[in-house]
Amino acid sequence: MMSSSSPSLSPEMLKFELWKGSVKEDFWHRLVALKLDVYRLDDKPLEIRGYFAPSLHQNYLQLRYESFHSESNIGSGSATDHGIGSSMQCSVPGTLYNANTKEEFAAFDKRTLMNKEAEKLWNDICSSKAIEDCTLLNRFFVISYADLKKWRFHYWFAFPALVFQPPVTSSGFHPAVEYFNEKEGADVMAACMSWRRSLSRDKPFFLLHMNDNRIDARPIGDWVDCQQGGKVIVAFYDPCQDIRYPGWPLRNLIMLAARHWNTKTLQVLCYRENKGQADLELSLVGDVIIPEYPDLESSSHIPNAVGWERSIQAKGPSKQGPKVIDLAASMDPKRLAQSAADLNLKLMRWRILPTLNIDLLSNTRCLLLGAGTLGCQVARGLMAWGIRHITFVDSGNVAMSNPVRQSLYDFNDCLNGGKPKAEAAAESLRRILPGVRAVGIKLTIPMPGHTVSENEVSDVMETCRQLHNLVNEHDVIFLLTDTRESRWLPTLLCANADKVAINAALGFDTFLVMRHGHGPSVCQLDLEGNSQHAGQGYLEDDRKIRLGCYFCNDVVAPEDSTINRTLDQQCTVTRPGMAPIAAALAVELAINVLHNSLRAAAPADNGSSSDVEPLSALPHQIRGSAANFSQLLFMGTAFSKCTACSPQVVAEYQQNGFEFLKLVFNHPTYLEDLTGLTDLIKSTNEISIDWED
Amino acid sequence: MMSSSSPSLSPEMLKFELWKGSVKEDFWHRLVALKLDVYRLDDKPLEIRGYFAPSLHQNYLQLRYESFHSESNIGSGSATDHGIGSSMQCSVPGTLYNANTKEEFAAFDKRTLMNKEAEKLWNDICSSKAIEDCTLLNRFFVISYADLKKWRFHYWFAFPALVFQPPVTSSGFHPAVEYFNEKEGADVMAACMSWRRSLSRDKPFFLLHMNDNRIDARPIGDWVDCQQGGKVIVAFYDPCQDIRYPGWPLRNLIMLAARHWNTKTLQVLCYRENKGQADLELSLVGDVIIPEYPDLESSSHIPNAVGWERSIQAKGPSKQGPKVIDLAASMDPKRLAQSAADLNLKLMRWRILPTLNIDLLSNTRCLLLGAGTLGCQVARGLMAWGIRHITFVDSGNVAMSNPVRQSLYDFNDCLNGGKPKAEAAAESLRRILPGVRAVGIKLTIPMPGHTVSENEVSDVMETCRQLHNLVNEHDVIFLLTDTRESRWLPTLLCANADKVAINAALGFDTFLVMRHGHGPSVCQLDLEGNSQHAGQGYLEDDRKIRLGCYFCNDVVAPEDSTINRTLDQQCTVTRPGMAPIAAALAVELAINVLHNSLRAAAPADNGSSSDVEPLSALPHQIRGSAANFSQLLFMGTAFSKCTACSPQVVAEYQQNGFEFLKLVFNHPTYLEDLTGLTDLIKSTNEISIDWED
Repeated sequence: MMSSSSPSLSPEMLKFELWKGSVKEDFWHRLVALKLDVYRLDDKPLEIRGYFAPSLHQNYLQLRYESFHSESNIGSGSATDHGIGSSMQCSVPGTLYNANTKEEFAAFDKRTLMNKEAEKLWNDICSSKAIEDCTLLNRFFVISYADLKKWRFHYWFAFPALVFQPPVTSSGFHPAVEYFNEKEGADVMAACMSWRRSLSRDKPFFLLHMNDNRIDARPIGDWVDCQQGGKVIVAFYDPCQDIRYPGWPLRNLIMLAARHWNTKTLQVLCYRENKGQADLELSLVGDVIIPEYPDLESSSHIPNAVGWERSIQAKGPSKQGPKVIDLAASMDPKRLAQSAADLNLKLMRWRILPTLNIDLLSNTRCLLLGAGTLGCQVARGLMAWGIRHITFVDSGNVAMSNPVRQSLYDFNDCLNGGKPKAEAAAESLRRILPGVRAVGIKLTIPMPGHTVSENEVSDVMETCRQLHNLVNEHDVIFLLTDTRESRWLPTLLCANADKVAINAALGFDTFLVMRHGHGPSVCQLDLEGNSQHAGQGYLEDDRKIRLGCYFCNDVVAPEDSTINRTLDQQCTVTRPGMAPIAAALAVELAINVLHNSLRAAAPADNGSSSDVEPLSALPHQIRGSAANFSQLLFMGTAFSKCTACSPQVVAEYQQNGFEFLKLVFNHPTYLEDLTGLTDLIKSTNEISIDWED
Repeated sequence: MMSSSSPSLSPEMLKFELWKGSVKEDFWHRLVALKLDVYRLDDKPLEIRGYFAPSLHQNYLQLRYESFHSESNIGSGSATDHGIGSSMQCSVPGTLYNANTKEEFAAFDKRTLMNKEAEKLWNDICSSKAIEDCTLLNRFFVISYADLKKWRFHYWFAFPALVFQPPVTSSGFHPAVEYFNEKEGADVMAACMSWRRSLSRDKPFFLLHMNDNRIDARPIGDWVDCQQGGKVIVAFYDPCQDIRYPGWPLRNLIMLAARHWNTKTLQVLCYRENKGQADLELSLVGDVIIPEYPDLESSSHIPNAVGWERSIQAKGPSKQGPKVIDLAASMDPKRLAQSAADLNLKLMRWRILPTLNIDLLSNTRCLLLGAGTLGCQVARGLMAWGIRHITFVDSGNVAMSNPVRQSLYDFNDCLNGGKPKAEAAAESLRRILPGVRAVGIKLTIPMPGHTVSENEVSDVMETCRQLHNLVNEHDVIFLLTDTRESRWLPTLLCANADKVAINAALGFDTFLVMRHGHGPSVCQLDLEGNSQHAGQGYLEDDRKIRLGCYFCNDVVAPEDSTINRTLDQQCTVTRPGMAPIAAALAVELAINVLHNSLRAAAPADNGSSSDVEPLSALPHQIRGSAANFSQLLFMGTAFSKCTACSPQVVAEYQQNGFEFLKLVFNHPTYLEDLTGLTDLIKSTNEISIDWED
């Protein structure tokens, strides 16, 4: 029926062209994400899939985003834009051995790995599993080491092929167009294309059964059936390009034929396409002569396997060795910065801090009142913890004396009178990490004792409204200003909105870092987060200790402290080490609070029992001193007559709003009357008079 | 003898043109320097000098650098370039009332101050002291407030003039050229110029004695003599420009005349110059008619005084009020930054930390080994303390993950593979404070266990030499690298050179900050700084406890710890707060050590007795933990078999240099043999075997 147009030559040892492996960048991105977030230290072999097509311009086995058939969508981007052209591609099972260290990668026992793969292959052939699912004949594996810090990936493909001993011979392979006449060629092409478009297209080995002038494409499991009449050509998707040699997949197919089909020769079509069409000039036809393999009778004798990819990167005559790709150079630097910034945090979760809630932190909105020595340092600490939403409030401009102590500014920020501090700080954060959402707002916090004149009223009212909204729109509020009285309104607003308030204040060689207790209107947040309000009366919850605020230890209302101060009292005259320490502790404390579902209502815990959980220590107050390098923890309960967080004050604010605030700004002692402090002091004085008698 | 060429008018009340005050910028710079470094909170009135000349283009009393006749050279610049033209200027005594606060400035009791000056003037006139030193008649004073932070100066000149009641009258003043004939004019000019060029030139009042066709300039003390024959014109250096009225200095001269000279009229020459020459067109001549002042007979009745300067800045019809100058805008920003950076430190010395040795710190050279999370933060702390000489050593480039934790880098430093870290850190310091002397050196510290191959030997030897020199050229060495073994060579070099070594190391939520003890070759530095070497044998000094180094607690030599580390072990996986805290404490500790004359040899002092002196606390080790927010102090003595600082190791280094180091790099256990640790461990093991029996 068919005429061979090629001269028949004496059989020679058959050579095969080795696969090429290729990795799309999105594969590495997904591996990085999965490694950091899911696998972590787990270095079990991973089942992956490779993709190939018998096409002129896709002559490789490719790894890409979808190679990980993880259900989770972890990783960069989604799979939707990664599948272009894949409908004509065939997927192949593989294994990824990703080492945790470069040394482990270098120490992989490649012989053992290859033998393991040979065993899988041989078992699949012997058990006929490979006849059912012929993609198993194309099984591959990859060893790799991903340097997640530098975005450098070391990898080495292996395409295991069982070894014939003695070798298979052939009288040669030639372009199919020389082998088939025109009619046959057209029929072969039609049969192949129909296979490629059928549901069986992902079976990369098939039979061309020629009978009664018809050519049908059939699964390799039909071999015996096809022997009943007509002629059979074994075809396979050939990813290789050489017009002299068949591609690598043929090797394992021959091994399967030798084991199962009881034949001495095979006629083979190396099926190749160009631009999505069968191409008989590229495709090869040849015969394979299978020698006797007595060993194959026993499934327990596993043939050797070969197939480590050669690489132009590799040294030496064998061209064998791992490839390296450095993605950092080609990646968008901003994206790289983003992922690098998260790297340390994700690494913490691998081993030392598995409960770290990175998503929680990246969604937490932090309001920093004050962008000075403390504010700058707190913002840096928050960034390092993965907080990505930071708002600064400050009334000043960057002064020449700032940069040496305030770590977000430099000399250029001071020129021409200085940039507004809050905006300069936000800009600086964006220079550190382009993706951060940082905002700066220039605003002077209204303060008790800082009188509001009639023509300032509307401005101050607007400022109060703005601050009220800012507090409500953020999750954690840091009080980092440089006077006592500027902390009063924020303390009240935090108590009113039941926000987490973290306070840091500096002395010359001392500091105080504390968290305020929960708002007085909230008795207790249960673990499900349902709040149980005490109703109208803002009664103290006697079931639970409420922690104090910054003003709870005071028996006088805050007042203007800035009048008549000499220069050394006006400036932040502190030992330079105090601010970074206090700021760092404020951030560490805030992170721990955020990891407690009770938030501000969480009881004080000095971490004595913190062996179990590193984020559990929740002291109320940390006081430190550089005079003797000491650091001590304190706890204080809320004071029922507190001028900032007591039920009366919060209720008064809720009922009278700005009118109440205006009274306080102009007459701070009003707070003492309101809370009953005046009476308390009077009675205390009377007692002391008695004593003198 | 003389003919009046001017028409004689009926006498009218005489008006005087008020002085103008002027301040050269260098006066403010010197005031800032003196205030910060010398006067501090002391607000006593200051004796100063003003300068003026009777010149067309210098019609004011000027304050400048030399106005402070302090012996100290404190202040910006030297006096040499400030005295140009001053040889023809006359100096005048004055008083500066410089307030400590803006509120005090506003509250100055101007009437009282003026009365006080009137009293001084009147006393000087009555006592004839003002005849001896007639500059006293030009006495002035200034009230001021210097905002040293913003370089804004509020000031107000007063030129006290005693008030005549009833007023002095005159028939008018006219240009001298109209009064004298040509010959007289030439003679007057010659007499005046000779006075101006004589040793008496700084006497701004003098007499022109006309007798026998001669005109002589004579001191005002010669009045009575001159009355013996001829005619006398009273002359004064007139700083004013008005061609109708005499200048302000004449007022107090008339008062002196009224008190002492028993005359009803005075003929007056308002002497004025142009381009350094007497100018009779500018100069005025007129007569003054002195009414009867019976009050002047009594020296106890002090006349009133007037003379607050008018200012175009002042509001209201009287144009009286303080002037304000804002130097920040006109100053060289770099110089401004320099002074601003020192401001907080100088303010510390005012009250809270008088022993702070700013000069010592600004001359201290600090070597930072490692420019990572710790190095960046240590450098910032040192800058804030006024350290101005910082050298970074680091082997790396800025990576994308660095900026969020390493506070001297931003996103741009990471692009294109990243800048070399040490140089980027130095650049960043210069951006913060342009005047700082920051240097970055890219260098890999050779380490025990990091084998040196034969072709690396010369490079590593050069690196060791470089490190040796760097340690010797600096005063304080900070060990801030991220492995144990990289601290070994620096520890040895510090012990060898007896340098202050400050060590900071991080765990996940812990840190250690310590200072190393002094070198083993130094027994004791006495208070005069004379070292008492123990001679050849490097014997331990048994009179004094030597503090331990980082390796003194170990019984094994350091070795390569970087092999086979997973990613989370390679990266600095620490709670972000640890580095800023440890860095800040390392700096505070270093500052305290620098303030102790024993430096590294200072005994451990945990600051329990530090009420006296805030810089005296000198703990040996500070260990902190964020697990329970604790911080504890420890003390450990030097270990005689220490692999880094023991006498044997230092002696071996001194004797065999690089050959010894090479042995250690390639065979770290050599250290254990050398120090006797090997034997120690062996004997310990033998003991434990005995125990098992």
